[in-house]
Amino acid sequence: MQEHVFAAVALDQRQVEVRAFDVPAISADAGLLKVEKTGVCGSDWPYFLNYPKSKGPMILGHETVGFVAAIGANAQARWGVQEGDRVALEEYLPCGHCHYCRTGEFRLCDATDTVIGNGIRYGSTPVSVAPSLWGGYSQYQYLHANAVFHKVPDHVPDTLATLALPLGNGVEWACLQGRATMGEVVVIQGPGQQGLACVIAAKEAGAACIIVTGLTNDAHRLALAKEMGAHYTIDIEQADLLEAVADITHGHMADLVIDCASGGPATVVSAIQLARKGGRILLCGRKGRPIPEFDSDILFRKNLTLKGMRGHSYQAVEMAMQLIASGRYPLEKMCTHIYGLHDVASALHTVGGEGDAGAIHCCVDPWK
Amino acid sequence: MQEHVFAAVALDQRQVEVRAFDVPAISADAGLLKVEKTGVCGSDWPYFLNYPKSKGPMILGHETVGFVAAIGANAQARWGVQEGDRVALEEYLPCGHCHYCRTGEFRLCDATDTVIGNGIRYGSTPVSVAPSLWGGYSQYQYLHANAVFHKVPDHVPDTLATLALPLGNGVEWACLQGRATMGEVVVIQGPGQQGLACVIAAKEAGAACIIVTGLTNDAHRLALAKEMGAHYTIDIEQADLLEAVADITHGHMADLVIDCASGGPATVVSAIQLARKGGRILLCGRKGRPIPEFDSDILFRKNLTLKGMRGHSYQAVEMAMQLIASGRYPLEKMCTHIYGLHDVASALHTVGGEGDAGAIHCCVDPWK
Amino acid sequence: MQEHVFAAVALDQRQVEVRAFDVPAISADAGLLKVEKTGVCGSDWPYFLNYPKSKGPMILGHETVGFVAAIGANAQARWGVQEGDRVALEEYLPCGHCHYCRTGEFRLCDATDTVIGNGIRYGSTPVSVAPSLWGGYSQYQYLHANAVFHKVPDHVPDTLATLALPLGNGVEWACLQGRATMGEVVVIQGPGQQGLACVIAAKEAGAACIIVTGLTNDAHRLALAKEMGAHYTIDIEQADLLEAVADITHGHMADLVIDCASGGPATVVSAIQLARKGGRILLCGRKGRPIPEFDSDILFRKNLTLKGMRGHSYQAVEMAMQLIASGRYPLEKMCTHIYGLHDVASALHTVGGEGDAGAIHCCVDPWK
Amino acid sequence: MQEHVFAAVALDQRQVEVRAFDVPAISADAGLLKVEKTGVCGSDWPYFLNYPKSKGPMILGHETVGFVAAIGANAQARWGVQEGDRVALEEYLPCGHCHYCRTGEFRLCDATDTVIGNGIRYGSTPVSVAPSLWGGYSQYQYLHANAVFHKVPDHVPDTLATLALPLGNGVEWACLQGRATMGEVVVIQGPGQQGLACVIAAKEAGAACIIVTGLTNDAHRLALAKEMGAHYTIDIEQADLLEAVADITHGHMADLVIDCASGGPATVVSAIQLARKGGRILLCGRKGRPIPEFDSDILFRKNLTLKGMRGHSYQAVEMAMQLIASGRYPLEKMCTHIYGLHDVASALHTVGGEGDAGAIHCCVDPWK
Repeated sequence: MQEHVFAAVALDQRQVEVRAFDVPAISADAGLLKVEKTGVCGSDWPYFLNYPKSKGPMILGHETVGFVAAIGANAQARWGVQEGDRVALEEYLPCGHCHYCRTGEFRLCDATDTVIGNGIRYGSTPVSVAPSLWGGYSQYQYLHANAVFHKVPDHVPDTLATLALPLGNGVEWACLQGRATMGEVVVIQGPGQQGLACVIAAKEAGAACIIVTGLTNDAHRLALAKEMGAHYTIDIEQADLLEAVADITHGHMADLVIDCASGGPATVVSAIQLARKGGRILLCGRKGRPIPEFDSDILFRKNLTLKGMRGHSYQAVEMAMQLIASGRYPLEKMCTHIYGLHDVASALHTVGGEGDAGAIHCCVDPWK
Repeated sequence: MQEHVFAAVALDQRQVEVRAFDVPAISADAGLLKVEKTGVCGSDWPYFLNYPKSKGPMILGHETVGFVAAIGANAQARWGVQEGDRVALEEYLPCGHCHYCRTGEFRLCDATDTVIGNGIRYGSTPVSVAPSLWGGYSQYQYLHANAVFHKVPDHVPDTLATLALPLGNGVEWACLQGRATMGEVVVIQGPGQQGLACVIAAKEAGAACIIVTGLTNDAHRLALAKEMGAHYTIDIEQADLLEAVADITHGHMADLVIDCASGGPATVVSAIQLARKGGRILLCGRKGRPIPEFDSDILFRKNLTLKGMRGHSYQAVEMAMQLIASGRYPLEKMCTHIYGLHDVASALHTVGGEGDAGAIHCCVDPWK
Repeated sequence: MQEHVFAAVALDQRQVEVRAFDVPAISADAGLLKVEKTGVCGSDWPYFLNYPKSKGPMILGHETVGFVAAIGANAQARWGVQEGDRVALEEYLPCGHCHYCRTGEFRLCDATDTVIGNGIRYGSTPVSVAPSLWGGYSQYQYLHANAVFHKVPDHVPDTLATLALPLGNGVEWACLQGRATMGEVVVIQGPGQQGLACVIAAKEAGAACIIVTGLTNDAHRLALAKEMGAHYTIDIEQADLLEAVADITHGHMADLVIDCASGGPATVVSAIQLARKGGRILLCGRKGRPIPEFDSDILFRKNLTLKGMRGHSYQAVEMAMQLIASGRYPLEKMCTHIYGLHDVASALHTVGGEGDAGAIHCCVDPWK
Repeated sequence: MQEHVFAAVALDQRQVEVRAFDVPAISADAGLLKVEKTGVCGSDWPYFLNYPKSKGPMILGHETVGFVAAIGANAQARWGVQEGDRVALEEYLPCGHCHYCRTGEFRLCDATDTVIGNGIRYGSTPVSVAPSLWGGYSQYQYLHANAVFHKVPDHVPDTLATLALPLGNGVEWACLQGRATMGEVVVIQGPGQQGLACVIAAKEAGAACIIVTGLTNDAHRLALAKEMGAHYTIDIEQADLLEAVADITHGHMADLVIDCASGGPATVVSAIQLARKGGRILLCGRKGRPIPEFDSDILFRKNLTLKGMRGHSYQAVEMAMQLIASGRYPLEKMCTHIYGLHDVASALHTVGGEGDAGAIHCCVDPWK
């Protein structure tokens, strides 16, 4: 084992620096993960942009894949994994005993909630909380007593394995929460990695007509959506969205609309218009501001269900890992960029839309 | 059988007149109902207020209870009722063969939808459509081939039986759609007849803590809510609503919020604030205007489900009729006013909030 | 229109005869279907074998596809179809107003139940009930007021269209009732047309591991199961079934077992053994005798759900028709035999296992 | 703290002896419970009767209520309880990381399953497994790292609090699994403590007609069922069960049948007969032998769902505790016997049906 652990630390707005940390002593309850790669999530961008000064420096990154490098005796008894096992981690470190945790909804755990709880979870816990190594843009990541593990089969490339969480979101949203069903029309707004993950999940669930919408400069993402199984794509800058969906579906409109778009509340309004009577709408992204034209009477008149959705269940990530391991989808085409530890700032810029416009899924390789 | 049928016809904004109609000839497919009483629904008020000139005169009223006075041979074969049977009707006249009708969701039937369909349903079809008698504020009502019937037990007073639809809404909203469950906290906004119906339904479903909110001049309705089974009531003009619910529930907040309030979108905003993480919200009333401060990020952050809800299923009305027949709730206290055929305008004023402020459920007796 | 209608009438045990019937007069409520082809269902076999003398002669066959040749005025208003439309019929003629019919479960309709109701449904109603033409092995079939229609797209060959009901069963069993879900292990016992339909439906629902079991002489059916999407097949005469499934699934066993086998209760016992803890089992066939070794304690110990299942919902048949129309599965390989009206006895023998052992789906062409 | 812990140890068939154990040292991960009272479960009886020699001596009892007397530092961080807290324990010690545990179904946890896992759970783990104190018939019980806690309000008498698990079973079976719903007919076979718990749960869920069946010597239990909310009771030795239910329900029969009877498989057969078409049946007890007359064709013909059911979810026990704390049911009438530590054999005889025939819920007070 090396003497120090190198990690990229977010220090201030738009500032990241590689620092050396001591290798933490591992108690009976805990462990250490040797990171292979960590995916860069869209939610890292606001942290980078608006660096929360009150919290202080932190190692970002929470879509981590790696090997168990050390494990305490109690941890080994409780985790179902052992030294050398290859795992993907979830971001959550659930308390384990609250109502949400006991009923399989640990992503809603109050104790570790970022607003009302201690906020201790991977990728958003400051280095001032011992033993500092809470983020994935690091050579090693601390395995806390409450970590949530998913086994990663040997044959899966590490880059693909970092898709477990974004693809898990797709499974959670399109299938488990959205209940996409055989024969249905599913419209997915926004062809980023989350939107593409929803395409795959809807495809698996038997949706008969998957329509993905995007902007003109999403052309390559829309093309990839088709490779993943979408039946139609719509460039909303070139076509009238409602008309186009009405045409494709012969007036039926969408059974399920999944809004994965960023960039303001316009897609909430269009989602409500796109849904058929009795349809379902999932809002899967932060919009950042109110929606003045929001009219609840449309929900009322059309008997619509509107669900705010965030994160994934354990089950969804397991299904996602199974999908990745199956090799049935060209997921490697989503993996557009790999950055080294010294390039984490670039990785974040890219995910924030300030870098290569062609990016879809980006990873950090802490050994590069 | 008498020579003419007298009915109250809405003629213009805020104008109603009693007119005589010929007794219609009844074809093999149809029938005639001798009306006992018809409930006055809140949705009659906008018709009365903004009389839709393009449609022309119509007989309002769709919460009808009566006896089958005549029935055609085919109708008898198809309806499961016969001459002399006592029934409550639904407002819907579903086509019977579309996807919605075939799957038990006939209230969403496209063919008879008031916006995209022919709009033929009880209480909102003009007299120009033969045979004119489409409304409940009439001595007789036409039984169309597609009418939906519920048997009314002999011992149930007709006034109580007209609660079948509003109470059916309560069952649909609180139980079937809202999934109120044993042990849950349910907040009901608005203590009108729909809100009270939700109290009863939530009570039946085992909700452990039912909280009803209203205004200062709802004092008697809030008191009645308690008689129906509410555990707490809150006068939102006297107390801080959020604080009060937080106090009562020790910070848990509401598992389910049902917004039955009229009078603008403020209650949509409070409903979203009242729901716990992962909670459910039902919007059961038209608000009439957009909600500028609507912020979808709260839905996202709290994983909320927001459902626009309208009307009831067959099942809900059956359950409601069973509840009425059980005599377990003091429903007679909800039945505050009975109007004669010449007083339909007063009945509508009252339901619209321009009459006796103490009104809850009003009926029209077309023989008075 | 021709003067007479020719139809194959079941007269006695294992006896069928072609007879001429008068073309029925069509009332305003009814219609007439010109039959293209009718599928032969396994349930026709016991009728043929044990001819119910008390009922008298009847025209069997209830998986009919054809064109609306005549339609009454009321029927046209109520059915959503018109003369010339191409449709597939369900076997049910539901009353339309009972609790089951009103809630989308019309296949359970009491009034027309074959045991406790009048038993009036297609393919099992005697010719003594006017106007006789209740079965599909006939040039024309009577369209009763309560018939249930599904539109058949022009481009679908009639032989494939007769798969709407058996494939609808697959959708109902594997998806709607069995809840086959992405990533699951589904074992299907019996590779006949129902078993193959379940393979397709489970595939559509995203099942990750579909295992089909059969006998040695089912080899070609098992091969076809693989073409339809099964991942594994097991010849239970050659392999130890439980061991084989344990091997394939690394000890997980089946999330869902669908028993489509005929030939006695042994498969009920194996289904219970094959299910994982908390698993689901669907029994989709009549076994004909009790199961002495049935031990409910296994259900108890393993928290199993065992569902008796029969027939399909409207929704399932719609989904099936959509699947057929999509051309995504080589359904033509299931359609092994077409018999003329004079060969209905042969068709029934074949379906009963006394004819060509290679048969899967058989049709009758009443014009051949 | 006293020097020794006294506990009743099952030593051989029908043999129990009070023994002294050392107070265990408590590691950082564990704790110690000072037992107030422990309920006697029907499942203790077979252990007592057929003492599993291969396992060796064990302390039975797993419905324990008490105070946290000692707690390790890690345990305190992970359990959400602290020294002095009053809790009820579940019998399960789930691994926490398997698929079942992660999705809220920890009662199905493989790792601790009594058949395929290590079988470590309260009340059935031998004293040879350190630190011996795995059962509730003891002054102190060991709090294992994976123990599952429910808070017990101060005002609840300890005897009532020991009903948390049996009442939790009732909630799980009648409500969460059985989906008893407003307006339904629920038949409960067997008026023991589990049957009575189902009555309460079905009542809470709004069942309109609860029928409880029993034997002639269950008269006082049947009377108590009525006090708990049952609408009808049937002595199956005096009346024809099927006729009686048909009469009460006007031929509708049962939407849900819950079989809580012990004493052989006859009640499985009657449960299947009692269910209406499309009905649900829960089997909640071990029958001990196969059911030769079991005919799966009835499940098929009536579209029945048959569920083997065992134990409870976390949620169900929380709801049960809430019900107990509400004081709304005369639960004290169920608590018929309290035995001291030296009378555990009598307690077991009673629960096994060899003692006072009037017993319903029995407790052990280890300090008496």
